[in-house]
Amino acid sequence: VRRVLVTGGSGFIGLPAVGQLADLGLEVHAVARHPPNTASVVWHAVDLLEPRAADEIVRRVKPSHLLHLAWTTIPGEYWTTLENLSWLAASASLLRAFAEVKGERAVFAGTCAEYEWGSDLLVESKTPLRPATLYGSCKHALRQTAESVAAQASLSVAWGRVFFLYGPREHPARLVSSVARGVLAGEVVDTTHGRQVRDFLHVTDVASAFVALLASDVTGAVNVASGEGVELRVVTAEIERLAGVNGLVRRGRRPIPPSEPDMLVGDATRLRDEVGFRRRFDLETGLADTVAWWRSQLDTSDRT
Amino acid sequence: VRRVLVTGGSGFIGLPAVGQLADLGLEVHAVARHPPNTASVVWHAVDLLEPRAADEIVRRVKPSHLLHLAWTTIPGEYWTTLENLSWLAASASLLRAFAEVKGERAVFAGTCAEYEWGSDLLVESKTPLRPATLYGSCKHALRQTAESVAAQASLSVAWGRVFFLYGPREHPARLVSSVARGVLAGEVVDTTHGRQVRDFLHVTDVASAFVALLASDVTGAVNVASGEGVELRVVTAEIERLAGVNGLVRRGRRPIPPSEPDMLVGDATRLRDEVGFRRRFDLETGLADTVAWWRSQLDTSDRT
Repeated sequence: VRRVLVTGGSGFIGLPAVGQLADLGLEVHAVARHPPNTASVVWHAVDLLEPRAADEIVRRVKPSHLLHLAWTTIPGEYWTTLENLSWLAASASLLRAFAEVKGERAVFAGTCAEYEWGSDLLVESKTPLRPATLYGSCKHALRQTAESVAAQASLSVAWGRVFFLYGPREHPARLVSSVARGVLAGEVVDTTHGRQVRDFLHVTDVASAFVALLASDVTGAVNVASGEGVELRVVTAEIERLAGVNGLVRRGRRPIPPSEPDMLVGDATRLRDEVGFRRRFDLETGLADTVAWWRSQLDTSDRT
Repeated sequence: VRRVLVTGGSGFIGLPAVGQLADLGLEVHAVARHPPNTASVVWHAVDLLEPRAADEIVRRVKPSHLLHLAWTTIPGEYWTTLENLSWLAASASLLRAFAEVKGERAVFAGTCAEYEWGSDLLVESKTPLRPATLYGSCKHALRQTAESVAAQASLSVAWGRVFFLYGPREHPARLVSSVARGVLAGEVVDTTHGRQVRDFLHVTDVASAFVALLASDVTGAVNVASGEGVELRVVTAEIERLAGVNGLVRRGRRPIPPSEPDMLVGDATRLRDEVGFRRRFDLETGLADTVAWWRSQLDTSDRT
């Protein structure tokens, strides 16, 4: 690894990933529209959706390694927004530029939404790919083109399929954040019945998994997943317990869209055995870390 | 059909398609980098690979119907050039803009290279999609995203998979052109053994098929094919016969790349039964038309 370029560097996964890459002593360049001011990283204030922006940053930095995390992620909107097409376009331009500067290895953030959703464990080598959403389709399309470029160029490509994540600094509209924040503030939080089974990984571990994947020579799709399913009602009950409250989460008060699958759990065998990744947080310690962070935020805002 | 926008309007398929659409009395806007001067069509001198170009032309014209034919097509290069990624990017931008101006129907030029190549008839509803080339992958990726947009918006999308085509004005490096031109000039032309089976359609018919597809309400992928396979050596022998020469085509003098399939023939049932398309040229009359055109070109150049 000579020089890494990370897109979405200030994002939920990007910020810890950039920090971990810098901690490894690598030369890290990170792209964000509004870069934070963190040391050991060369930040580039770039909006990748601007014309030629993807192309220009790659030609300027000439990275040997690329970690492409940037994409539209606005909760509720990102599944269907036409901006997914613009991210596909920008990513295709990024990929072309990276191949042209003779980049060696690229890792992309994919999604469990590329799979055909059913009730089985989602396995990279087995589960059919049949995205139900525009978000999933555009990611799926990008993966196919990236692998096609890799097949004809001396470029190594891996694709980390992200499942569900949580942790400090997550967007407050997401499930774990909104429940933690709500119950810590003593508010009632209405949720669905919560019997949906999901695969959660703490954002620090998601970032570590991407860093490990980038440093490895594993190619193709790899689930960035825990391999364990948990019901959402168990997650929210654990948050209540950690917050020291009871009965603030009211289950069954919100409908579940018919398109939502009962179960989304990824097989984590490739990530564990081929990439050699071990997670730092299980769900209990990870949620404790998250609730502690939200508590510190609320304490801070109390003082202001 | 209120107003049609055709990309690649000056191309091999585009020029006859634009003419046929204008003959139907439609309001036709056509995009080309260097537009020809044909009547009944509003030409726009636009390079779709320039930043924002795709977006701006769609917002200016506000078409109800889109026929997207433009792509890189340089013989020998288009299979692998990284410019395929730029065409994917430009096409994704075009698609976004078309959805945003509430376009009603879009038809795209796909390719038989989206299919897994084997020795069976290629059928839209049956043959697996497994492109072996970057060209095929980028087209495949675009189709998936276009259908995903169609699934969530009030936009009707069809996808015409082009097989092999020939006719007047074809690029001189292509098989039929190069053989016709060569033998008419009395030159020896070296070819492969010519036992590969291909599906040919005259470019006038390919253009008519796209016009019929655009005017129909058929959605999804449709092979733009004759449904009939012919060996390449039969095609080149027919060109020799029409040119009144013998023995100028030397078969077996050029190797066949190992990636080339023995047979590429499309099932034309959807095109015939659902779109209602009938071709005007069979191979014999189509080649006669083509050889006559090359003869007129050579006569013209003799006189200058």
